[in-house]
Amino acid sequence: MKPLNVGMIGYGFMGRTHSNAYSKVSHFFDLPYKPALRVICGLVEEQAKAFAEKWGFQSHTTDWRKVIEDENVDIVDICVPNNMHAEIAIAAAKAGKAIICEKPLAMNAAQAQEMVDAVEAAGVANLVSFNYRRVPAVTLAKQLIDEGRLGKIFHYRANFLQDWTISAEVPQGGDGTWRLDASVAGSGVTGDLLAHCIDTALWHNGPISSVNAMTETFIKQRLHAETGQAQKVSIDDACTFFCRFDNGSLGNFESTRYARGHKALYTFEINGEHASIRWDLHDLGRLEYFEHRDEGRVRGWRSIHVTDGDHPYMNKWWVPGLQIGYEHSFVHQVADFLTAMDAGKPCSPTFAEALETQKVCDAVLQSAAEKRWIEIGS
Amino acid sequence: MKPLNVGMIGYGFMGRTHSNAYSKVSHFFDLPYKPALRVICGLVEEQAKAFAEKWGFQSHTTDWRKVIEDENVDIVDICVPNNMHAEIAIAAAKAGKAIICEKPLAMNAAQAQEMVDAVEAAGVANLVSFNYRRVPAVTLAKQLIDEGRLGKIFHYRANFLQDWTISAEVPQGGDGTWRLDASVAGSGVTGDLLAHCIDTALWHNGPISSVNAMTETFIKQRLHAETGQAQKVSIDDACTFFCRFDNGSLGNFESTRYARGHKALYTFEINGEHASIRWDLHDLGRLEYFEHRDEGRVRGWRSIHVTDGDHPYMNKWWVPGLQIGYEHSFVHQVADFLTAMDAGKPCSPTFAEALETQKVCDAVLQSAAEKRWIEIGS
Amino acid sequence: MKPLNVGMIGYGFMGRTHSNAYSKVSHFFDLPYKPALRVICGLVEEQAKAFAEKWGFQSHTTDWRKVIEDENVDIVDICVPNNMHAEIAIAAAKAGKAIICEKPLAMNAAQAQEMVDAVEAAGVANLVSFNYRRVPAVTLAKQLIDEGRLGKIFHYRANFLQDWTISAEVPQGGDGTWRLDASVAGSGVTGDLLAHCIDTALWHNGPISSVNAMTETFIKQRLHAETGQAQKVSIDDACTFFCRFDNGSLGNFESTRYARGHKALYTFEINGEHASIRWDLHDLGRLEYFEHRDEGRVRGWRSIHVTDGDHPYMNKWWVPGLQIGYEHSFVHQVADFLTAMDAGKPCSPTFAEALETQKVCDAVLQSAAEKRWIEIGS
Amino acid sequence: MKPLNVGMIGYGFMGRTHSNAYSKVSHFFDLPYKPALRVICGLVEEQAKAFAEKWGFQSHTTDWRKVIEDENVDIVDICVPNNMHAEIAIAAAKAGKAIICEKPLAMNAAQAQEMVDAVEAAGVANLVSFNYRRVPAVTLAKQLIDEGRLGKIFHYRANFLQDWTISAEVPQGGDGTWRLDASVAGSGVTGDLLAHCIDTALWHNGPISSVNAMTETFIKQRLHAETGQAQKVSIDDACTFFCRFDNGSLGNFESTRYARGHKALYTFEINGEHASIRWDLHDLGRLEYFEHRDEGRVRGWRSIHVTDGDHPYMNKWWVPGLQIGYEHSFVHQVADFLTAMDAGKPCSPTFAEALETQKVCDAVLQSAAEKRWIEIGS
Repeated sequence: MKPLNVGMIGYGFMGRTHSNAYSKVSHFFDLPYKPALRVICGLVEEQAKAFAEKWGFQSHTTDWRKVIEDENVDIVDICVPNNMHAEIAIAAAKAGKAIICEKPLAMNAAQAQEMVDAVEAAGVANLVSFNYRRVPAVTLAKQLIDEGRLGKIFHYRANFLQDWTISAEVPQGGDGTWRLDASVAGSGVTGDLLAHCIDTALWHNGPISSVNAMTETFIKQRLHAETGQAQKVSIDDACTFFCRFDNGSLGNFESTRYARGHKALYTFEINGEHASIRWDLHDLGRLEYFEHRDEGRVRGWRSIHVTDGDHPYMNKWWVPGLQIGYEHSFVHQVADFLTAMDAGKPCSPTFAEALETQKVCDAVLQSAAEKRWIEIGS
Repeated sequence: MKPLNVGMIGYGFMGRTHSNAYSKVSHFFDLPYKPALRVICGLVEEQAKAFAEKWGFQSHTTDWRKVIEDENVDIVDICVPNNMHAEIAIAAAKAGKAIICEKPLAMNAAQAQEMVDAVEAAGVANLVSFNYRRVPAVTLAKQLIDEGRLGKIFHYRANFLQDWTISAEVPQGGDGTWRLDASVAGSGVTGDLLAHCIDTALWHNGPISSVNAMTETFIKQRLHAETGQAQKVSIDDACTFFCRFDNGSLGNFESTRYARGHKALYTFEINGEHASIRWDLHDLGRLEYFEHRDEGRVRGWRSIHVTDGDHPYMNKWWVPGLQIGYEHSFVHQVADFLTAMDAGKPCSPTFAEALETQKVCDAVLQSAAEKRWIEIGS
Repeated sequence: MKPLNVGMIGYGFMGRTHSNAYSKVSHFFDLPYKPALRVICGLVEEQAKAFAEKWGFQSHTTDWRKVIEDENVDIVDICVPNNMHAEIAIAAAKAGKAIICEKPLAMNAAQAQEMVDAVEAAGVANLVSFNYRRVPAVTLAKQLIDEGRLGKIFHYRANFLQDWTISAEVPQGGDGTWRLDASVAGSGVTGDLLAHCIDTALWHNGPISSVNAMTETFIKQRLHAETGQAQKVSIDDACTFFCRFDNGSLGNFESTRYARGHKALYTFEINGEHASIRWDLHDLGRLEYFEHRDEGRVRGWRSIHVTDGDHPYMNKWWVPGLQIGYEHSFVHQVADFLTAMDAGKPCSPTFAEALETQKVCDAVLQSAAEKRWIEIGS
Repeated sequence: MKPLNVGMIGYGFMGRTHSNAYSKVSHFFDLPYKPALRVICGLVEEQAKAFAEKWGFQSHTTDWRKVIEDENVDIVDICVPNNMHAEIAIAAAKAGKAIICEKPLAMNAAQAQEMVDAVEAAGVANLVSFNYRRVPAVTLAKQLIDEGRLGKIFHYRANFLQDWTISAEVPQGGDGTWRLDASVAGSGVTGDLLAHCIDTALWHNGPISSVNAMTETFIKQRLHAETGQAQKVSIDDACTFFCRFDNGSLGNFESTRYARGHKALYTFEINGEHASIRWDLHDLGRLEYFEHRDEGRVRGWRSIHVTDGDHPYMNKWWVPGLQIGYEHSFVHQVADFLTAMDAGKPCSPTFAEALETQKVCDAVLQSAAEKRWIEIGS
């Protein structure tokens, strides 16, 4: 097992999920590389130091350029807010680093295109962290679709419902609530939540050709988390769109942070000629599957407890019946990325694939603004 | 369609379910007989009269013997408290009437045996109203077992959980709460609720050879509903037993009226070598089915929505997806009884079959009293 | 109880649900009127006669005008295909009959307006049979909204998913499949299924101001059920739309007959500031309710088994825990209609209210055709 | 943070869950000690070496006595088959080591008593790894009970259902299937699975006073995994028992490895005067809770998604809505043990508490053998 040094930029929520993944992956997967936590970079030195100690990073810094300049760093892992992805990723690519970048890839498709160009020019391994693809039930759904079990697909439906911004007293901007500031996040639920749904949909069901969207900002003004000043809310609180896929199926997507009772309810349902599939993140270890070819009297939605050895990734973990959780999707992502790197193969979703998701997000926002159908260019 | 006159004794809850069944059955089933509501009998004349008007009975009486003496009555339907079943049924049998009797058949097995002797001597059609057999999902379970889909059966589990007697202020005795008075009901949850579970179990899984039981009376004293006097509680509030079936499988049964949150949660689960089945009365239109012979990756409990035309009884009702309810089990019972009568065949569960249930109930109560295993004689 | 004579036109699926409702309602509800089945009208005499015998209609006819001309008929109940609603209803209104009409009210809003004008001019009692309003769980949802428990509403979501037309071998037109022929049905899923969702939504959440829709016809050509000739499919197989309500909330609606695994899955979810509600027709006896004001640690979606005496309509039926089904919504409808008639009050949804639903349906179809937002005029 | 050296004995399934817990705990919890993996001990040197490399143990050995003799080892963690627990634990206690021992504590209560005596004489910190107590939903259940929310408890029901030994071709004995060999495991499902249920029940509901049990061995003979020779099966394949608790409530427990469709379905339900609780391991992140004091119309079982910051342990992990899994119960166990050790307090379940579970297991097996009620001595 070759050592592989990780330089991580960002010590927030995603910094934790990625650090955990690097720490655990070698205990469960047999990999060509053994990741080592070389350096953590963050804005506040004291916090960066504390994070380094907690997770076992060898060093810390407050200057992300030092991470990229560090010759011993093999992978740059980008866990900062969205408005900094491009600059860091392009610099890392030029420095020849492999890159894992948090989602969404960029602020918009134009910026994402530059990032794709940079990694392709540099020939570096690259991945965007759409981690839900690697929840075993979601990967199993992909297998079933690819095996043709659903037949022709008619409908793809996905929701991502949260309720954490219903109170007008939630501030915006600053460390904890940058996702409510469009100048940092790019957009609201579209880039943060629908991007996940779109990534999975493109993977499961192929390209989207046109979209028609509606967005809403329910609370028009909030206080800034740091300055305390009232400011106009710049993001989309809710976004609904329908669309057409190249394969003739219809899509229906919705995301909101105003769905009381749902914390992170990412759900999808796919209806095919022969079979249908449903999943939701709140019960992430189950896949619902309806097989029309079952005998009529005993036909029903099957609740598959995705914990058996023949389910994706599950032979690495415990024994049948025992569930894994959210964090494991990141472990699978690192395992697949390292394996692909060693084989010199791309690991999905690459920057180029995430660019397609970005194009759909852009089209969705444009459609909502212009109140009309938007065709997705390729 | 030949006319068939019904004489009903008892206008309580069960009087309503049976009257509804006779009123509806001809609208949905093609039957040899068309039932007519000839006479209703009940204790209080005014109420009997009102019931007759509401349901369209041609006449009413307060004397059950008049029902039996009425030459135009073809079926006597017994919906009175348990302590009156035997006398009425034996008289009806002697008068040559077909009989439908509410469950449990009798106060105990000895009395039930006399009733069996009477109907067999008279050669009259007879049925005990264990209506849950004819919930379509429960009938489907029977079909699946009979087709051998479960293979060897290892476990049979059933519960009947209620919560309506938790308050010490619920009275006992009298019209509405005679089920809390052992001198009228015979026993508590054993005869009222477990009798249903046992009837289904014997039907699904064959004879029980031995039982071991525990009962409890949580509230020791209650006021009488009519006299207002404090009296010792004579019934079992809760009863748990395990048992062995002749086929080698193990049974586990429980019933209580102290299970907060459950109104009428009758559930069963059957585990076989190849497949398992689950059902519960609170979602009576679904059958859960696990088929181990499904391919491993897509194996899961199937939630069968028992509303399709190929499900038992369902082609008589609406269209796929649209549910029926509790009352329909009584309609099915009448339909099957009339069909069997016309064919000169017995209709299950006959008095003789219900006697077997009574024997198990008796053994359960004896086991609890004597704190030991009891063998069931045949 | 005053007698009330029903003249029913149409003996298909809806003819059965309505006949059942009239037959049962007096057994369970105390009403000012006692409905009697006076006459059934249908196209084929033999079938009309058989239906009359099965359900106890006093007479039958093949000419609907005779029903309207019959002086003894008090209520005309219209259960024929959609393209005949207007002519019959207008004639019935002119004849001074009370009218219950199956949904959707008309082929389009213009026609519906004429029907509204007719009943209002005649001053006759009128109701459109959007029966799902009177499923107890759906009525309970309305109560909870009206009591302000949800607070400000952000989202209304509804789906009506079926799978019965996936096979290209399903014919169109004729008796059994007139719903696939736009010249008879008016439209496809929009009028047949979404009309239900829209009716409930307007009732629960108030007027819709604008819509944006997409429709699709997956199978372009089918054989006619009677002629056997191949014909272009004229209906919408699937329809998705989003919308804005006057109260500021966003709507998302979808219907299809190509959702494998769903027979009649009508679902809705409403997200409010303080609480959310979910329901689905496949488990129609449950209402899911999330109350944010519950203490944090024990907050969760409540699965309300709508069978208690304090739930809408349920004190008329059995005892807590025992479910009713699809057919009972029609019984409740008749009970409410007769009660309102006696009081001289309108019974919702009236023709005038159903006209609003029709306007939304028209706007949805127009939006899909013109690929743009459509404002709903009032 | 003080370093704390772990000596682990056993590198099987439990060796992995414990190693993972020590590896992760410091990343998520702020603890007085930082555990270091000092030495792993296992039977086969090559495997012990590979395990050490995979998990980062500093050394490995095949002689468990060396672990105990190692002065640098602070905690001895016992993950070997049950028949070796006592000897190792007693030696470790004598050597003054803190001890975490896998469950069940011993082969029987007599042996368990010796182990309790040893740790109490030595005054060493001790814990038995009944890990399910520390699934957050199970801990939440304990909180709710302790707060008196359930009021008087009437019923405690628990099942542990598996299906992995249904095939007669599963061998017994040897590395992977020692749980089927009573000379190694002590018993079958009673010690392996019911011990978990009993531990939770004693914790939630207090002492059990008497038990009445039935066991069965469905497959009488199996081949030995190593020798290939046919041998009598010595364990209980299934065990059912009911019992009385000191607090007057009734218990009903069942475990089997012949419940087709269930991999590790540990469930419990507790019915109290005011509220009820349900949980199952297959959906371990949810707790079902019924609160009778909710207003009648909106009363229902609440499905609590135990992922919020105010749920036990959950503020250490991710954000609301994101689930953790099976493995985390072991992390919580280590965190609590280290915290208690530092405070000089016992950490439940101690050896002394696990002895009570062992006594119940012994009584259950005795009851089944002697076919009679057994009182539990204190």
